Amino acid sequence: MPGQELIRAVLERPLVQRAIITVIVVNAVTMGMETSDYLMDHAGGLLHVVDRAALAIFTVELAARLYAYGRSFFKDPWNWFDAVIVTVSLVPASGPTSVLRALRILRALRLVSAVPSMRRVVGALLAAVPGMASIIGLLVLMVYIAAVITTKLFGDLVPARFEDLSSSLFTLFQIMTGDDWGTVAHEVMAHRPWAWIFFIAYILMSTFVALNLFIAVVVNAMNDAEPSPAETRAQADLEAMRQELSAVNAKLDQLLMREHAGPRPPA
Amino acid sequence: MPGQELIRAVLERPLVQRAIITVIVVNAVTMGMETSDYLMDHAGGLLHVVDRAALAIFTVELAARLYAYGRSFFKDPWNWFDAVIVTVSLVPASGPTSVLRALRILRALRLVSAVPSMRRVVGALLAAVPGMASIIGLLVLMVYIAAVITTKLFGDLVPARFEDLSSSLFTLFQIMTGDDWGTVAHEVMAHRPWAWIFFIAYILMSTFVALNLFIAVVVNAMNDAEPSPAETRAQADLEAMRQELSAVNAKLDQLLMREHAGPRPPA
Amino acid sequence: MPGQELIRAVLERPLVQRAIITVIVVNAVTMGMETSDYLMDHAGGLLHVVDRAALAIFTVELAARLYAYGRSFFKDPWNWFDAVIVTVSLVPASGPTSVLRALRILRALRLVSAVPSMRRVVGALLAAVPGMASIIGLLVLMVYIAAVITTKLFGDLVPARFEDLSSSLFTLFQIMTGDDWGTVAHEVMAHRPWAWIFFIAYILMSTFVALNLFIAVVVNAMNDAEPSPAETRAQADLEAMRQELSAVNAKLDQLLMREHAGPRPPA
Amino acid sequence: MPGQELIRAVLERPLVQRAIITVIVVNAVTMGMETSDYLMDHAGGLLHVVDRAALAIFTVELAARLYAYGRSFFKDPWNWFDAVIVTVSLVPASGPTSVLRALRILRALRLVSAVPSMRRVVGALLAAVPGMASIIGLLVLMVYIAAVITTKLFGDLVPARFEDLSSSLFTLFQIMTGDDWGTVAHEVMAHRPWAWIFFIAYILMSTFVALNLFIAVVVNAMNDAEPSPAETRAQADLEAMRQELSAVNAKLDQLLMREHAGPRPPA
Repeated sequence: MPGQELIRAVLERPLVQRAIITVIVVNAVTMGMETSDYLMDHAGGLLHVVDRAALAIFTVELAARLYAYGRSFFKDPWNWFDAVIVTVSLVPASGPTSVLRALRILRALRLVSAVPSMRRVVGALLAAVPGMASIIGLLVLMVYIAAVITTKLFGDLVPARFEDLSSSLFTLFQIMTGDDWGTVAHEVMAHRPWAWIFFIAYILMSTFVALNLFIAVVVNAMNDAEPSPAETRAQADLEAMRQELSAVNAKLDQLLMREHAGPRPPA
Repeated sequence: MPGQELIRAVLERPLVQRAIITVIVVNAVTMGMETSDYLMDHAGGLLHVVDRAALAIFTVELAARLYAYGRSFFKDPWNWFDAVIVTVSLVPASGPTSVLRALRILRALRLVSAVPSMRRVVGALLAAVPGMASIIGLLVLMVYIAAVITTKLFGDLVPARFEDLSSSLFTLFQIMTGDDWGTVAHEVMAHRPWAWIFFIAYILMSTFVALNLFIAVVVNAMNDAEPSPAETRAQADLEAMRQELSAVNAKLDQLLMREHAGPRPPA
Repeated sequence: MPGQELIRAVLERPLVQRAIITVIVVNAVTMGMETSDYLMDHAGGLLHVVDRAALAIFTVELAARLYAYGRSFFKDPWNWFDAVIVTVSLVPASGPTSVLRALRILRALRLVSAVPSMRRVVGALLAAVPGMASIIGLLVLMVYIAAVITTKLFGDLVPARFEDLSSSLFTLFQIMTGDDWGTVAHEVMAHRPWAWIFFIAYILMSTFVALNLFIAVVVNAMNDAEPSPAETRAQADLEAMRQELSAVNAKLDQLLMREHAGPRPPA
Repeated sequence: MPGQELIRAVLERPLVQRAIITVIVVNAVTMGMETSDYLMDHAGGLLHVVDRAALAIFTVELAARLYAYGRSFFKDPWNWFDAVIVTVSLVPASGPTSVLRALRILRALRLVSAVPSMRRVVGALLAAVPGMASIIGLLVLMVYIAAVITTKLFGDLVPARFEDLSSSLFTLFQIMTGDDWGTVAHEVMAHRPWAWIFFIAYILMSTFVALNLFIAVVVNAMNDAEPSPAETRAQADLEAMRQELSAVNAKLDQLLMREHAGPRPPA
């Protein structure tokens, strides 16, 4: 299509990209300022204008990218990410959708897709997830089983913590993070003195599984890491030796061939 | 025995295995739903039927495996695991055995034995335990000694925390996890101002030992981990060089033998 | 300049350096003692004299170093560090600058610049920071976005925690460290029962990113670490083999050359 | 001396060593039982007798070892450890020395010196300490400086936490472990709203230094760890190649020497 090339060239200019990043940051700051009543009373209009302008710029930039890259636009998941964020921002948030209005700040996440090094970090984080699926599944299963047990056993005794399945799940997640578990355990132990068995077993097991989840991530990261200087040197040495050895082998072949042909007759 | 082969073939079909996993998951969900009074009032009968049906399926499947594999059934610890879980579920839970009824959800653990990747994860977790025995022993010894000391020194002052050996053990485990230890220490220090020495020493020592326990697990995991791409390449290089070197050696032997035989007479 | 060499030699004497370290430590201790009303009442004058004397020694030593090293003094950032600390200490702290007076103890940080092994540790810590910039940026972005959301959604409900952006930032940092987050979540959930979604999502995400930050630091540290004994031996083996292989290659060249020249005529 | 050999042989018998370990464990258990009023009322005499008997056995064993090994007894620090523990147990604990009586349970630590694998674990733990001296020093310096600052700035505002240097040190150690720091910070921020700067900076810095302390321990442990199977195989390959290369080199020398001597005259 006409102008596609041109628009693409403009969009890929470092200056343009830095400008977009600046708009994202400025918009994130103004959205933060909007939470202050004082600033809203004194500069609310200005903040509003900046917000509108930023949204307009994002919309135009997204449309331009859509036009410039055509179908290949949809091949990059980061473009989907940007498209969803901008589209949601365009939905008018009125009436009971105050939650949506609070979520406008998610627009600041565009910073991640706009800065290449952040994009790489998030990509690496997401790439680590599939390898942890089994351990995460085990952890979820453990918490679920514990939640059913505690709801049945402690639900009537300490309703504030274990009334139904969802509050038990919340409380057990809290215990797994180690937050205030002594207090929860004491509340239950006031009625069931043997409950410490459950809590200590749960903490030991969930910590042990979480620890192994953590180790799985570390081992993965180690394997994907750049080789250390020592490894690089060793690899280079190996490479050099292989070449020298090949040369040795070739020379021996030469010798063997000559021997086969017999020594040269004396001149 | 007649039909053993057939039953084994049926049991090992992916479709059958997936069906069993589905039953486990559905049963786990219905047991979770049974904790809700609302759902029990409106669909209690249905939930009960599903539970009975699931238990029937598990029993039949277990019997079939027992018949199909005969003696070798008992060689796999996972089969023992399944057998215990299903058998316990069949015990009628009446009267004072409400705890047993709450533990029925442990049936959901069959998911671990049914999904191979989870089985592997749990196997790896258990395999890590023996290597940590000495450090765990040291940690247990430390907590035990600290519990005897605190019961004697602080038992009369802060009975809520250190009344007898078991409450001291509980409190010291809680302190080791770092939960609310400041509050516990302040309670004791109100009577014994020098008690901070004990608490800080205990935290430093138990943290240090626990840290080394953790490191032992990490180092083990690292050693058992797949070699990294760099290591794999280095190993392949080494292998190739060894072969080339052997070839060189063989050719030299050839040369030496010929030399020994003397140069070929001129034609 | 006259005497530069001499002063430099004096300053670099181990005895002088150890004396300076002693003065730093003594001064740190006396500044600690000044916080005790009892000691100030009974030995306040002496503590004051020691403090003055220490400051005088630091000033003289700094001036001597400035004279002895001339321009190259400013090339070492640790010298800047010492210069700033000593200069700030010389500013008279009167009237409303009680904060400045409390910060005089920062002078004890000179211990870091005076002890080489501590200097190295701090250098290594600082060197690790740039590699973590992207992940830190992501973490800051996450906390900022969460703070804007919570201020808007929970600000009116739980003003003690989320009244404005700065209190939200503080509370979210506290939650990220896992301190008392259950209490905060319960306060919000009293008004908004669905708030657990936000808190659990926030904890999972921030923990996961912080974990990866941690892993980045570990992987960096591993790569910068001294090679292990096994690696050192392997590297030495490789080196030895390379030399032997070169010798083999050279000898083959010799053989080939002779062959080319033909066998030596029989004597 | 007469009998030294014999006593040494007896002491080193596995049966005797296992008996000593049994006595240590039994004594540890009875000392734990002594904390129970119920057990003291019903079996106090028996517990007392066991305790006396155990102490007698320890004393006799120590004396025997001292006699059997003579001077070399004092070369093993574990012997010093045992000697101190047994000697302290023999001191009559009367009057105000109730603390000493509570510390009798430290005798259970003899388990560490009696079980070789535990001895190794503790040895490894202690061996890790010197390498961490600089980072520990830095951490102590940080906490000390922060304690002086908080005593001066917050001592009058929140005397329960920061009254004097020792309570400040305790509170800052508590904050470093992440326990209840939000509560402490809120107490101070009620008087000094800007105090969050101090607390967040302190937590970030102390966590970062503690993290690096942790990493130093991990990296040390990795280096001291047994080589992984992959490394062992690579090392074996290297070794084999070196030998083969030496053989090649030797054969080439042979060839060169013969060539030098000229080809063998035709028969």
